[in-house]
Amino acid sequence: MMEYEVKIRVGDLQPLRARLAALGNRPATRLTERDLYFNSPKRDFSRTDEALRIRSTEEDTSLTYKGPKIGLAGVKAREELIVSVDPKGAMEEILFRLGFTRTAMVEKTRETYRVEGTFVALDEVKGLGSFVEIEAPSGLGEDEAIALISRVRGELEVRGEETTLSYLEMILAKR
Amino acid sequence: MMEYEVKIRVGDLQPLRARLAALGNRPATRLTERDLYFNSPKRDFSRTDEALRIRSTEEDTSLTYKGPKIGLAGVKAREELIVSVDPKGAMEEILFRLGFTRTAMVEKTRETYRVEGTFVALDEVKGLGSFVEIEAPSGLGEDEAIALISRVRGELEVRGEETTLSYLEMILAKR
Repeated sequence: MMEYEVKIRVGDLQPLRARLAALGNRPATRLTERDLYFNSPKRDFSRTDEALRIRSTEEDTSLTYKGPKIGLAGVKAREELIVSVDPKGAMEEILFRLGFTRTAMVEKTRETYRVEGTFVALDEVKGLGSFVEIEAPSGLGEDEAIALISRVRGELEVRGEETTLSYLEMILAKR
Repeated sequence: MMEYEVKIRVGDLQPLRARLAALGNRPATRLTERDLYFNSPKRDFSRTDEALRIRSTEEDTSLTYKGPKIGLAGVKAREELIVSVDPKGAMEEILFRLGFTRTAMVEKTRETYRVEGTFVALDEVKGLGSFVEIEAPSGLGEDEAIALISRVRGELEVRGEETTLSYLEMILAKR
Protein backbone atom coordinates (compact mmCIF):
# COMPACT_ATOMS: atom_id res chain seq x y z
CA MET A 1 0.00 0.00 0.00
CA MET A 2 1.29 3.49 -0.87
CA GLU A 3 1.02 6.26 1.66
CA TYR A 4 0.64 9.88 0.38
CA GLU A 5 0.89 12.67 2.93
CA VAL A 6 1.97 16.24 3.51
CA LYS A 7 3.59 17.34 6.76
CA ILE A 8 3.60 21.00 7.79
CA ARG A 9 5.47 22.55 10.70
CA VAL A 10 3.24 24.97 12.60
CA GLY A 11 3.94 27.28 15.52
CA ASP A 12 0.69 26.55 17.30
CA LEU A 13 -2.06 23.94 16.79
CA GLN A 14 -4.79 26.03 18.42
CA PRO A 15 -5.90 28.04 15.32
CA LEU A 16 -6.27 24.79 13.36
CA ARG A 17 -8.27 23.17 16.17
CA ALA A 18 -10.59 26.19 16.09
CA ARG A 19 -10.91 25.99 12.29
CA LEU A 20 -11.69 22.27 12.43
CA ALA A 21 -14.36 22.85 15.09
CA ALA A 22 -15.86 25.75 13.06
CA LEU A 23 -16.21 23.37 10.10
CA GLY A 24 -17.98 20.86 12.35
CA ASN A 25 -15.10 18.39 12.79
CA ARG A 26 -14.45 16.63 16.08
CA PRO A 27 -11.31 14.68 16.94
CA ALA A 28 -11.69 10.96 16.19
CA THR A 29 -8.83 9.90 18.51
CA ARG A 30 -6.29 11.46 20.83
CA LEU A 31 -3.46 9.13 21.73
CA THR A 32 0.10 9.18 22.96
CA GLU A 33 2.28 7.32 20.45
CA ARG A 34 5.65 5.96 21.53
CA ASP A 35 7.66 4.86 18.49
CA LEU A 36 10.79 2.73 18.72
CA TYR A 37 12.88 2.67 15.56
CA PHE A 38 15.21 -0.16 14.59
CA ASN A 39 18.07 -0.59 12.18
CA SER A 40 18.84 -3.73 10.18
CA PRO A 41 22.00 -5.83 10.68
CA LYS A 42 22.10 -6.23 6.90
CA ARG A 43 21.86 -2.67 5.58
CA ASP A 44 21.74 0.82 7.07
CA PHE A 45 18.14 2.09 6.89
CA SER A 46 19.32 5.71 7.14
CA ARG A 47 21.10 5.16 3.81
CA THR A 48 18.40 3.07 2.13
CA ASP A 49 15.67 5.44 3.45
CA GLU A 50 13.67 2.60 4.98
CA ALA A 51 12.21 2.46 8.48
CA LEU A 52 11.17 -0.28 10.89
CA ARG A 53 9.16 0.79 13.89
CA ILE A 54 7.23 -0.55 16.86
CA ARG A 55 4.45 1.90 17.78
CA SER A 56 2.70 1.63 21.15
CA THR A 57 -0.33 3.63 22.15
CA GLU A 58 -2.66 3.34 25.13
CA GLU A 59 -4.75 1.04 22.93
CA ASP A 60 -2.43 -1.29 21.00
CA THR A 61 0.97 -2.03 19.46
CA SER A 62 1.94 -2.34 15.82
CA LEU A 63 4.99 -3.13 13.72
CA THR A 64 5.47 -0.97 10.62
CA TYR A 65 7.87 -1.18 7.70
CA LYS A 66 8.24 1.92 5.50
CA GLY A 67 9.94 1.84 2.13
CA PRO A 68 12.07 4.62 0.61
CA LYS A 69 10.33 7.99 0.25
CA ILE A 70 9.36 9.32 -3.16
CA GLY A 71 9.26 13.12 -3.10
CA LEU A 72 6.41 14.67 -5.10
CA ALA A 73 6.44 18.48 -4.75
CA GLY A 74 6.07 18.59 -0.98
CA VAL A 75 3.88 15.49 -0.77
CA LYS A 76 5.61 12.42 0.65
CA ALA A 77 4.81 9.00 -0.81
CA ARG A 78 6.18 5.68 0.44
CA GLU A 79 5.20 2.06 0.79
CA GLU A 80 3.86 1.20 4.23
CA LEU A 81 3.23 -2.27 5.67
CA ILE A 82 1.65 -2.57 9.09
CA VAL A 83 0.70 -5.45 11.41
CA SER A 84 -0.79 -5.30 14.86
CA VAL A 85 1.30 -7.28 17.35
CA ASP A 86 0.80 -8.52 20.89
CA PRO A 87 2.58 -8.40 23.27
CA LYS A 88 4.91 -5.49 22.50
CA GLY A 89 7.81 -6.75 24.62
CA ALA A 90 8.14 -10.04 22.73
CA MET A 91 8.16 -8.24 19.36
CA GLU A 92 11.07 -6.07 20.49
CA GLU A 93 12.91 -9.16 21.80
CA ILE A 94 12.42 -10.99 18.50
CA LEU A 95 13.91 -8.02 16.59
CA PHE A 96 16.93 -8.02 18.93
CA ARG A 97 17.44 -11.79 18.43
CA LEU A 98 17.31 -11.26 14.65
CA GLY A 99 20.15 -8.73 14.94
CA PHE A 100 18.17 -5.48 14.70
CA THR A 101 19.30 -2.59 16.88
CA ARG A 102 17.31 0.25 18.43
CA THR A 103 18.22 3.62 16.96
CA ALA A 104 15.80 6.18 18.38
CA MET A 105 12.52 6.84 20.14
CA VAL A 106 9.91 9.35 18.98
CA GLU A 107 7.13 10.31 21.39
CA LYS A 108 4.16 12.42 20.45
CA THR A 109 0.58 13.25 21.27
CA ARG A 110 -1.52 12.79 18.16
CA GLU A 111 -5.05 14.06 17.69
CA THR A 112 -6.72 12.76 14.52
CA TYR A 113 -9.63 13.96 12.43
CA ARG A 114 -11.32 12.59 9.31
CA VAL A 115 -11.79 15.41 6.78
CA GLU A 116 -13.24 14.57 3.34
CA GLY A 117 -11.80 11.08 3.58
CA THR A 118 -8.29 12.27 4.53
CA PHE A 119 -6.65 11.60 7.88
CA VAL A 120 -5.62 14.86 9.53
CA ALA A 121 -3.23 14.54 12.46
CA LEU A 122 -2.31 17.31 14.91
CA ASP A 123 1.02 16.22 16.40
CA GLU A 124 2.94 17.57 19.37
CA VAL A 125 6.28 15.82 19.11
CA LYS A 126 8.58 15.70 22.14
CA GLY A 127 11.69 17.76 21.43
CA LEU A 128 10.55 18.79 17.92
CA GLY A 129 7.42 20.97 18.19
CA SER A 130 4.00 20.98 16.51
CA PHE A 131 3.09 19.56 13.10
CA VAL A 132 0.06 18.86 10.97
CA GLU A 133 -0.11 15.82 8.71
CA ILE A 134 -2.72 15.35 6.01
CA GLU A 135 -2.78 11.82 4.58
CA ALA A 136 -4.82 10.60 1.64
CA PRO A 137 -6.96 7.50 2.13
CA SER A 138 -5.41 4.33 0.71
CA GLY A 139 -6.45 3.24 -2.76
CA LEU A 140 -6.15 6.66 -4.40
CA GLY A 141 -3.78 7.18 -7.32
CA GLU A 142 -0.98 9.71 -7.10
CA ASP A 143 -2.72 12.64 -8.86
CA GLU A 144 -5.99 12.14 -7.01
CA ALA A 145 -4.19 11.87 -3.66
CA ILE A 146 -2.16 15.04 -4.21
CA ALA A 147 -5.21 17.03 -5.37
CA LEU A 148 -7.29 15.91 -2.38
CA ILE A 149 -4.53 16.73 0.13
CA SER A 150 -4.10 20.16 -1.42
CA ARG A 151 -7.84 20.91 -1.28
CA VAL A 152 -8.15 19.85 2.35
CA ARG A 153 -5.10 21.89 3.28
CA GLY A 154 -6.71 24.95 1.67
CA GLU A 155 -10.03 24.46 3.46
CA LEU A 156 -8.28 24.06 6.79
CA GLU A 157 -6.14 27.16 6.07
CA VAL A 158 -2.97 25.42 7.25
CA ARG A 159 -0.07 27.84 6.85
CA GLY A 160 3.50 26.83 7.50
CA GLU A 161 6.53 25.14 6.03
CA GLU A 162 6.18 21.74 4.35
CA THR A 163 8.74 19.07 5.10
CA THR A 164 9.29 15.59 3.71
CA LEU A 165 11.53 14.67 6.64
CA SER A 166 10.21 12.02 9.01
CA TYR A 167 10.19 12.68 12.77
CA LEU A 168 12.88 10.00 13.03
CA GLU A 169 15.13 11.93 10.64
CA MET A 170 14.52 15.18 12.54
CA ILE A 171 15.39 13.49 15.87
CA LEU A 172 18.56 11.96 14.38
CA ALA A 173 19.57 15.30 12.79
CA LYS A 174 19.45 16.99 16.22
CA ARG A 175 22.06 14.62 17.71
CA MET B 1 10.98 -18.18 28.07
CA MET B 2 12.49 -21.66 27.80
CA GLU B 3 10.53 -24.44 26.15
CA TYR B 4 11.10 -28.05 27.34
CA GLU B 5 9.54 -30.83 25.33
CA VAL B 6 9.88 -34.41 24.16
CA LYS B 7 8.84 -35.51 20.69
CA ILE B 8 8.11 -39.17 19.92
CA ARG B 9 7.47 -40.69 16.51
CA VAL B 10 4.53 -43.09 16.65
CA GLY B 11 3.02 -45.40 14.04
CA ASP B 12 -0.56 -44.61 14.97
CA LEU B 13 -2.19 -42.01 17.21
CA GLN B 14 -5.33 -44.06 17.88
CA PRO B 15 -4.05 -46.08 20.90
CA LEU B 16 -2.95 -42.84 22.58
CA ARG B 17 -6.32 -41.20 21.91
CA ALA B 18 -7.98 -44.21 23.54
CA ARG B 19 -5.61 -44.05 26.54
CA LEU B 20 -6.26 -40.31 26.97
CA ALA B 21 -10.02 -40.86 26.84
CA ALA B 22 -9.78 -43.75 29.34
CA LEU B 23 -7.97 -41.41 31.75
CA GLY B 24 -10.79 -38.86 31.34
CA ASN B 25 -8.95 -36.39 29.04
CA ARG B 26 -10.71 -34.63 26.19
CA PRO B 27 -8.97 -32.68 23.41
CA ALA B 28 -8.71 -28.96 24.22
CA THR B 29 -8.19 -27.91 20.59
CA ARG B 30 -7.94 -29.46 17.15
CA LEU B 31 -6.45 -27.14 14.57
CA THR B 32 -4.68 -27.21 11.24
CA GLU B 33 -1.37 -25.38 11.61
CA ARG B 34 0.38 -24.03 8.52
CA ASP B 35 3.93 -22.97 9.37
CA LEU B 36 6.08 -20.86 7.06
CA TYR B 37 9.77 -20.83 7.95
CA PHE B 38 12.15 -18.03 7.07
CA ASN B 39 15.91 -17.63 6.87
CA SER B 40 17.85 -14.50 7.80
CA PRO B 41 19.84 -12.43 5.28
CA LYS B 42 22.49 -12.05 7.98
CA ARG B 43 23.19 -15.59 9.12
CA ASP B 44 22.06 -19.08 8.10
CA PHE B 45 19.54 -20.33 10.68
CA SER B 46 20.19 -23.96 9.70
CA ARG B 47 23.78 -23.44 10.91
CA THR B 48 22.97 -21.36 13.98
CA ASP B 49 20.06 -23.69 14.87
CA GLU B 50 17.57 -20.81 15.13
CA ALA B 51 14.10 -20.65 13.59
CA LEU B 52 11.73 -17.90 12.53
CA ARG B 53 8.20 -18.93 11.71
CA ILE B 54 4.78 -17.57 10.86
CA ARG B 55 2.10 -19.99 12.08
CA SER B 56 -1.47 -19.68 10.82
CA THR B 57 -4.39 -21.67 12.14
CA GLU B 58 -8.13 -21.35 11.54
CA GLU B 59 -8.13 -19.04 14.58
CA ASP B 60 -5.10 -16.75 14.41
CA THR B 61 -1.56 -16.03 13.22
CA SER B 62 1.65 -15.75 15.22
CA LEU B 63 5.31 -14.99 14.67
CA THR B 64 7.76 -17.16 16.61
CA TYR B 65 11.50 -16.99 17.11
CA LYS B 66 13.24 -20.10 18.45
CA GLY B 67 16.80 -20.05 19.76
CA PRO B 68 19.35 -22.86 19.42
CA LYS B 69 18.30 -26.23 20.83
CA ILE B 70 19.91 -27.57 23.98
CA GLY B 71 19.77 -31.39 23.98
CA LEU B 72 19.02 -32.93 27.40
CA ALA B 73 18.79 -36.72 27.11
CA GLY B 74 15.92 -36.80 24.62
CA VAL B 75 14.22 -33.70 25.97
CA LYS B 76 14.53 -30.64 23.76
CA ALA B 77 14.98 -27.21 25.36
CA ARG B 78 15.16 -23.88 23.54
CA GLU B 79 14.24 -20.26 23.96
CA GLU B 80 10.92 -19.37 22.37
CA LEU B 81 9.51 -15.87 21.75
CA ILE B 82 6.03 -15.55 20.34
CA VAL B 83 3.77 -12.66 19.29
CA SER B 84 0.32 -12.77 17.78
CA VAL B 85 0.17 -10.80 14.54
CA ASP B 86 -2.60 -9.56 12.29
CA PRO B 87 -2.92 -9.66 9.33
CA LYS B 88 -0.73 -12.60 8.30
CA GLY B 89 -0.03 -11.34 4.77
CA ALA B 90 1.52 -8.07 5.93
CA MET B 91 3.82 -9.89 8.38
CA GLU B 92 5.15 -12.07 5.57
CA GLU B 93 5.63 -9.00 3.34
CA ILE B 94 7.55 -7.17 6.09
CA LEU B 95 9.91 -10.16 6.48
CA PHE B 96 10.52 -10.18 2.71
CA ARG B 97 11.26 -6.41 2.71
CA LEU B 98 13.73 -6.95 5.56
CA GLY B 99 15.60 -9.49 3.41
CA PHE B 100 14.29 -12.73 4.96
CA THR B 101 13.61 -15.62 2.60
CA ARG B 102 11.05 -18.44 2.85
CA THR B 103 12.70 -21.81 3.28
CA ALA B 104 9.94 -24.34 3.91
CA MET B 105 6.35 -24.96 4.86
CA VAL B 106 5.19 -27.47 7.47
CA GLU B 107 1.52 -28.38 7.61
CA LYS B 108 -0.04 -30.49 10.31
CA THR B 109 -3.23 -31.29 12.15
CA ARG B 110 -2.63 -30.85 15.87
CA GLU B 111 -4.91 -32.10 18.60
CA THR B 112 -3.96 -30.82 22.06
CA TYR B 113 -4.66 -32.01 25.59
CA ARG B 114 -3.74 -30.65 29.00
CA VAL B 115 -2.39 -33.48 31.18
CA GLU B 116 -1.10 -32.65 34.67
CA GLY B 117 -0.15 -29.17 33.54
CA THR B 118 1.73 -30.36 30.44
CA PHE B 119 0.64 -29.69 26.86
CA VAL B 120 0.24 -32.94 24.96
CA ALA B 121 -0.01 -32.62 21.18
CA LEU B 122 -1.04 -35.37 18.76
CA ASP B 123 0.39 -34.30 15.41
CA GLU B 124 -0.25 -35.63 11.94
CA VAL B 125 2.39 -33.92 9.83
CA LYS B 126 2.00 -33.78 6.06
CA GLY B 127 4.75 -35.85 4.46
CA LEU B 128 6.29 -36.93 7.78
CA GLY B 129 3.79 -39.05 9.73
CA SER B 130 2.45 -39.07 13.28
CA PHE B 131 4.13 -37.67 16.39
CA VAL B 132 3.37 -36.97 20.03
CA GLU B 133 4.82 -33.95 21.79
CA ILE B 134 4.75 -33.47 25.55
CA GLU B 135 5.71 -29.95 26.61
CA ALA B 136 6.26 -28.74 30.17
CA PRO B 137 4.38 -25.61 31.27
CA SER B 138 6.51 -22.45 31.23
CA GLY B 139 8.17 -21.38 34.46
CA LEU B 140 9.45 -24.81 35.47
CA GLY B 141 13.18 -25.36 35.98
CA GLU B 142 15.05 -27.92 33.90
CA ASP B 143 14.95 -30.85 36.39
CA GLU B 144 11.30 -30.33 37.26
CA ALA B 145 10.32 -30.04 33.59
CA ILE B 146 12.15 -33.24 32.62
CA ALA B 147 10.70 -35.22 35.56
CA LEU B 148 7.16 -34.07 34.78
CA ILE B 149 7.45 -34.89 31.07
CA SER B 150 8.80 -38.34 31.91
CA ARG B 151 5.96 -39.06 34.36
CA VAL B 152 3.26 -37.97 31.91
CA ARG B 153 4.84 -40.02 29.15
CA GLY B 154 4.73 -43.09 31.42
CA GLU B 155 1.09 -42.55 32.38
CA LEU B 156 0.08 -42.15 28.77
CA GLU B 157 2.11 -45.26 27.82
CA VAL B 158 3.65 -43.55 24.80
CA ARG B 159 6.02 -45.97 23.09
CA GLY B 160 8.19 -44.97 20.18
CA GLU B 161 11.43 -43.33 19.21
CA GLU B 162 12.34 -39.94 20.68
CA THR B 163 13.72 -37.28 18.38
CA THR B 164 15.11 -33.81 19.03
CA LEU B 165 14.75 -32.88 15.35
CA SER B 166 12.18 -30.22 14.53
CA TYR B 167 9.59 -30.83 11.81
CA LEU B 168 11.42 -28.18 9.78
CA GLU B 169 14.68 -30.13 9.98
CA MET B 170 12.89 -33.36 9.01
CA ILE B 171 11.28 -31.65 5.98
CA LEU B 172 14.61 -30.15 4.90
CA ALA B 173 16.41 -33.50 5.35
CA LYS B 174 13.98 -35.16 2.93
CA ARG B 175 14.87 -32.81 0.07
